[in-house]
Amino acid sequence: MYDSYEMGNQHNSLKKLAILGSTGSIGQQTLDVIRALPDKFKVIALAAGSNIELLHRQIQEFKPRMVYYQNQELYSKPKDCEFVTIEKMACHPDVDLVVVATSGKAGLLPTIEAIRCGKMIALSNKEPLVMAGEIILGEIKKQQNRQPVILPVDSEHSAIWQCLNGEAEKPARIILTASGGPFLNYSLYQMENVTVEQALQHPSWKMGKKVTIDSATLMNKGLEVIEAHWLFEMPYNRIDILIHPQSIIHSMVELADGCIKAQLSVPDMRFPIQYALTYPERIPNPTLPMLKLDQIRNLQFEKPDYHRFPCLRLAIEAGKTGGTYPAVLCGADEVAVDLFLQKRIRLTDIARLVEKVMSMHSPVYHPDLDTIMEAENWARETVKKLLNGAN
Amino acid sequence: MYDSYEMGNQHNSLKKLAILGSTGSIGQQTLDVIRALPDKFKVIALAAGSNIELLHRQIQEFKPRMVYYQNQELYSKPKDCEFVTIEKMACHPDVDLVVVATSGKAGLLPTIEAIRCGKMIALSNKEPLVMAGEIILGEIKKQQNRQPVILPVDSEHSAIWQCLNGEAEKPARIILTASGGPFLNYSLYQMENVTVEQALQHPSWKMGKKVTIDSATLMNKGLEVIEAHWLFEMPYNRIDILIHPQSIIHSMVELADGCIKAQLSVPDMRFPIQYALTYPERIPNPTLPMLKLDQIRNLQFEKPDYHRFPCLRLAIEAGKTGGTYPAVLCGADEVAVDLFLQKRIRLTDIARLVEKVMSMHSPVYHPDLDTIMEAENWARETVKKLLNGAN
Repeated sequence: MYDSYEMGNQHNSLKKLAILGSTGSIGQQTLDVIRALPDKFKVIALAAGSNIELLHRQIQEFKPRMVYYQNQELYSKPKDCEFVTIEKMACHPDVDLVVVATSGKAGLLPTIEAIRCGKMIALSNKEPLVMAGEIILGEIKKQQNRQPVILPVDSEHSAIWQCLNGEAEKPARIILTASGGPFLNYSLYQMENVTVEQALQHPSWKMGKKVTIDSATLMNKGLEVIEAHWLFEMPYNRIDILIHPQSIIHSMVELADGCIKAQLSVPDMRFPIQYALTYPERIPNPTLPMLKLDQIRNLQFEKPDYHRFPCLRLAIEAGKTGGTYPAVLCGADEVAVDLFLQKRIRLTDIARLVEKVMSMHSPVYHPDLDTIMEAENWARETVKKLLNGAN
Repeated sequence: MYDSYEMGNQHNSLKKLAILGSTGSIGQQTLDVIRALPDKFKVIALAAGSNIELLHRQIQEFKPRMVYYQNQELYSKPKDCEFVTIEKMACHPDVDLVVVATSGKAGLLPTIEAIRCGKMIALSNKEPLVMAGEIILGEIKKQQNRQPVILPVDSEHSAIWQCLNGEAEKPARIILTASGGPFLNYSLYQMENVTVEQALQHPSWKMGKKVTIDSATLMNKGLEVIEAHWLFEMPYNRIDILIHPQSIIHSMVELADGCIKAQLSVPDMRFPIQYALTYPERIPNPTLPMLKLDQIRNLQFEKPDYHRFPCLRLAIEAGKTGGTYPAVLCGADEVAVDLFLQKRIRLTDIARLVEKVMSMHSPVYHPDLDTIMEAENWARETVKKLLNGAN
């Protein structure tokens, strides 16, 4: 009865993709989606870090024209492939969509480069918006005729974006859901003693190591608050967090009239990845698991506990204060998480180190990219110094 | 970041309303919404049945230009009001939106009349679409340039409509939620013995008596399946029912890619009423209760039990078989519910009577309006005969 249905079904030829970070968790799952929808996409560029073995298999399977990997001098060039920089890939005129699935600050410069070239970007890497949201927004606003340019790949931001589809106005409130991670019901004392192995057992999501640890401390949710702030241009006091252990509702929006819209699925990153890849189309993918709420039976919700999860508080504080603080937060957290994974500190030391580094920081407001990078670097070095001083 | 936001905020002058069935539960709640948003609407016509006292108060408050009520010869005409027929109200050139909040078959002819006059219709009355969905769809398709014409007011259909906002294609599946009513966990034996008072205690919704009893038998959910079939042009095998006792998720759509969207609010009919009245705008209404999921804490889901709730099965069968069966279902159910409210039959007799009448019916397929009305009337008379024969 509603003719908006007829908007769809536009004819799409093969969408040409550059995938930055193809050997990471999101990169691999992106290629899973592409395998399932072979007549929709052509991978023309792959970029990876140091997992050359996996990249080599991906090159054989997807036959990209362009590749990038670190330490190129150590490996022979794959045949029929051109070595190019990540920034060149992100701007190549044949690329329709740049998937930024890198981790940490690695995605920042390619994201900005892709925006400047007017590309559509499927962004899973949190740090670009967290560290440089103001700069990215400024760059996007210079590209007025090509919006939207950033398609979020995080399940939470994808959910919000999907729920706002067709809504004429900004939401009154964004409600970011959080599984609460493996230690949701642990006391602070119990959390002091968790092992790396326990922290890597996420109850609902299959993700990379860094984001899995960040999910255990809820740092990840704090970074998502900052991301949502920039992505949807929402003030922090209108972004709520709701613990939802089943990870079925991926986030919600409260609209001006009080109605709430939510997006749900089995917790599987291929859903938000596919939506960003196929947008504005939705395409059946028989390899994806269908949600059966009558089998799940129960969805639970509770308030987050900022006392037991200080990283959540620290991240939101960094976001609200702004300037170089979010970059410092990211840098300090990345090193601290790495130290935890190396079993050199406890899980609860991550928040202590991040808080200490933030307290030592002399912020710069409205920083340029170099200043952001310097602050991030300073934070990394400061964590290492604190640790060495403490040892 | 997403410029779809800028679609909104179109300037709207006062929307002029005709409210058919203003003294019923939905009619009264419609006026509550209008009271809360006084600079948005002007009520120019009110129509009621026999609750003249309440209608009189409504006339004094809202000062409509046109009124209708039954048994006009018994009452003095309110001053400054013109008596008009319901059909004339529905087509008056000054009316921007016709709210069809009548009950039973009363809304059928005014709905069709309003469609023929190219009006926007906020429809809460289920029977027009259930009894004459094919005819209504045919009439709508003749009015190609003025879609959409029917804005659903049922919380379930409003939820589906809201979730499909901005989606280019038909959903893969509609998931109608159902509270399950007050007897969700009763055995068949217990259900034989429930009182009218128990049946009128709906656990989550404030509604009229007829729909409250229909909710206790799940007949209401079956009628909603038929309504959804016509409203969203969905085959019956793609409409699922999910019991959700908290009535917070008002329905869901599963999209082509397996993503599910849901609409949530406190169970309060003023939400879907307001959305239909203000569409395409969403307007803050401080008199509406805001949803706090961290206080509700739990949303539950289960499959419906067609054995304990035979009315659900009967309604879906009537819808699938089509022709005059849905009209027979409606007529038989209305009389049977009335007999239950008069304490002349048991709650469980409603399904028995409806099933018996349906089994006695000689259907007509692709009926015209007169044939539909005749079938409905035949069903009413047949229930009465069966009862008198049985007594």
